[in-house]
Amino acid sequence: MQAGQKKRKNPDIDVVVLEQTYDVSYSACGMPYNIADPERDMEKLVVRKAQVFIEKNKINLLTGHRVTAIDNNAKKVFGVTLGGENFCFNYDKLLIATGAFPVISDLPGFDLPQVMALKSLEQGKHIKAYIQQNPIKKAVIIGMGYIALEMCESFAKRGVKVSMVKPGSVFLPWLAHGLADVIYEELSEKGVDIYSGHTIEKIEPLDKGVQVVCENLALEADMVLVAFGVKPCSEMAQHAGFDLGISDSIAVDRHLKTSDKDIYAAGDCADTFHVVTGDKCWIPLALIANRAGWAVADNVTGTPTPIQGVAGTSVFKVFSLEVARSGLNFKEAVEAGFDPVENSVKTRSRAYGHPGSTPVYINMVGDKKTGRLLGTQMVGKEGVAHRINAIAVALYNKMSVADFSQTDLAYAPPFGPVWDPLLTAANQLVKKI
Amino acid sequence: MQAGQKKRKNPDIDVVVLEQTYDVSYSACGMPYNIADPERDMEKLVVRKAQVFIEKNKINLLTGHRVTAIDNNAKKVFGVTLGGENFCFNYDKLLIATGAFPVISDLPGFDLPQVMALKSLEQGKHIKAYIQQNPIKKAVIIGMGYIALEMCESFAKRGVKVSMVKPGSVFLPWLAHGLADVIYEELSEKGVDIYSGHTIEKIEPLDKGVQVVCENLALEADMVLVAFGVKPCSEMAQHAGFDLGISDSIAVDRHLKTSDKDIYAAGDCADTFHVVTGDKCWIPLALIANRAGWAVADNVTGTPTPIQGVAGTSVFKVFSLEVARSGLNFKEAVEAGFDPVENSVKTRSRAYGHPGSTPVYINMVGDKKTGRLLGTQMVGKEGVAHRINAIAVALYNKMSVADFSQTDLAYAPPFGPVWDPLLTAANQLVKKI
Repeated sequence: MQAGQKKRKNPDIDVVVLEQTYDVSYSACGMPYNIADPERDMEKLVVRKAQVFIEKNKINLLTGHRVTAIDNNAKKVFGVTLGGENFCFNYDKLLIATGAFPVISDLPGFDLPQVMALKSLEQGKHIKAYIQQNPIKKAVIIGMGYIALEMCESFAKRGVKVSMVKPGSVFLPWLAHGLADVIYEELSEKGVDIYSGHTIEKIEPLDKGVQVVCENLALEADMVLVAFGVKPCSEMAQHAGFDLGISDSIAVDRHLKTSDKDIYAAGDCADTFHVVTGDKCWIPLALIANRAGWAVADNVTGTPTPIQGVAGTSVFKVFSLEVARSGLNFKEAVEAGFDPVENSVKTRSRAYGHPGSTPVYINMVGDKKTGRLLGTQMVGKEGVAHRINAIAVALYNKMSVADFSQTDLAYAPPFGPVWDPLLTAANQLVKKI
Repeated sequence: MQAGQKKRKNPDIDVVVLEQTYDVSYSACGMPYNIADPERDMEKLVVRKAQVFIEKNKINLLTGHRVTAIDNNAKKVFGVTLGGENFCFNYDKLLIATGAFPVISDLPGFDLPQVMALKSLEQGKHIKAYIQQNPIKKAVIIGMGYIALEMCESFAKRGVKVSMVKPGSVFLPWLAHGLADVIYEELSEKGVDIYSGHTIEKIEPLDKGVQVVCENLALEADMVLVAFGVKPCSEMAQHAGFDLGISDSIAVDRHLKTSDKDIYAAGDCADTFHVVTGDKCWIPLALIANRAGWAVADNVTGTPTPIQGVAGTSVFKVFSLEVARSGLNFKEAVEAGFDPVENSVKTRSRAYGHPGSTPVYINMVGDKKTGRLLGTQMVGKEGVAHRINAIAVALYNKMSVADFSQTDLAYAPPFGPVWDPLLTAANQLVKKI
């Protein structure tokens, strides 16, 4: 799509897209939900409109082409096809959009055929086929990030019992205690066993399946999903001598330019700016990547389009719960040099006396010195996923908690109390600041 | 609650509350939903916590006390109880929180026992009892505002066939055409007959029930709900010589003071400021009223608390649809002196390839001259009610459409596309501006 945007902006540009796999324009975030459903073909995740767009705009899309090196003095890229042939292309402007790769341990047994990761469409298809073609009863998920949590539900829907395990001792350290507890309870209630604080030593093959071996713990499974998190694919940029940023992401300026003036980087491989701290950050999420791609197209074709920065807004679903955040949590606020105050509230999803109301848990963080709103986290069965957007907009505008508490949020009995949960949270935090 | 806030802020203040009915602290907005459910007692809408609060804080609450006059030179209020006894109270500071009353026509037949309005809890109880105690098969609703639309669903749930009728020729004139069409279709599909552009001449009794008579149209019904809209209860303030504002609401400054320095007005009887126009407006909605009450308590007890203004955010439910708005529509923007541009988009409620996705319709209005975001309307089966809050926050901050299009809104496949529907709307409107 990034290439597509460039082409659309200036039809005289020759656009060549080099993709190492055979898949482009698919909804990676949709994979856990697709895996959950035996009836739905995984090809449904491939965005047809994008394919039509590529053909219509005569973009030279070359799949199965893995770029291995950039020579930015000669303005050339080199690579090798999956068929083993070498190739070389000249460029005037280059965009690196290599994404991120899932972290896999080099401990013994992580190369067993029952051990899988989920990032590419190919990996998604492999996991789905594996579940369908084998009598999978038990899975172990290593890691407790977004993908790990989303996959709990997918496995459960396929009748697979899940155990989650990770070395860190705190269940979801980025989430406020009370909120993490709500997710813990939901997972437990849905039959997911959670083992935090267990350093993984190895994965061993058994007669049937494998076992994940930790100190004082061995978890048997028919398959293992490794979901430790992802890292930016920045090795090639590093070899070419470009500056790297946080977590070894490719450092770019507000116009997505790397330290080479003719080379841009966008998406999960590149860093970006945070609207709350003003500093660089690396947050590999879909909207950030998409928007950066569009901005590169504008910048390359002559419409300077700076990136304003991200608020770190994210949302995911864990069984019946919606979990959302935007901005900094308390710990991140301390690290960024603020003097944060936090407050948690438990409110409800519907008006007083309205049936079907469920609890909404909110943790809000503000700065004692300036009164500024720094971030918010929410957990609940409804009214969380879209409500967080109000916080994202507030953070973009660097609002104070007091000003946010004065905003005119919507009210009707089926959708919330007169005082929206976010206003209740802000009203209480104002008093603490 | 407003009185309660005053008392809490300064426990030495003697607070007397004079209420003409016998009901206080009930959720008026919850009545349509309660009427829909024969199992739920209407007393459930009375906020118990508020009652406890009143008792605990020794607030002198006198129900059945109707104030009839204010003498602001003598600083006295006069009135009569429902039992017929006169009363008089002195005050140092007075808050007028008389609310609004439903408009009832003086045309023939509007005083028939089958003709009802819905504003007070007593009226709500009456309607509910009437449905339960009579064989109601058909109802006519006169008017097509929020309450009218919400009551369609209540009647339908009680097995009552509804016809709506009003003099105006446009179904929902405040809503963009395409969006109003979606609601029209939903109502039609659910069996509601809609008659716009029919001037009502009278209501006539029949042997069984009544008929609402218009030119060329007569609608038979077992009961009639009059939902023309409401007007501020400002007569007493007018008689006392205070300034009135838009729609005869009581004019107040940002500290809720009327033209008498010791008298405040708050809630549906008073006007307020609009954050988009900066001008006065009269929008009788619950959060605005609640917040104004709190602010009066602060202002009276020595913490100057100005009202920042409202964005005109509202949301309601019509059968399976959520309908929301914030800010100005195109026509209001023209009237406020802007040079508006509007654009409508049809997006979807979930990600590409995610099952259960439904259309989300958005109309967004911006100012050509300044690029400023002026307002947004949305209709859809999910993801509308809470999403509008992002717009409310943007309007508070006087954001441009271009800036709004750069905000970091949440994405996960079950909750929306990568580009949130509001971002798609903003991206397209930016091009038009």
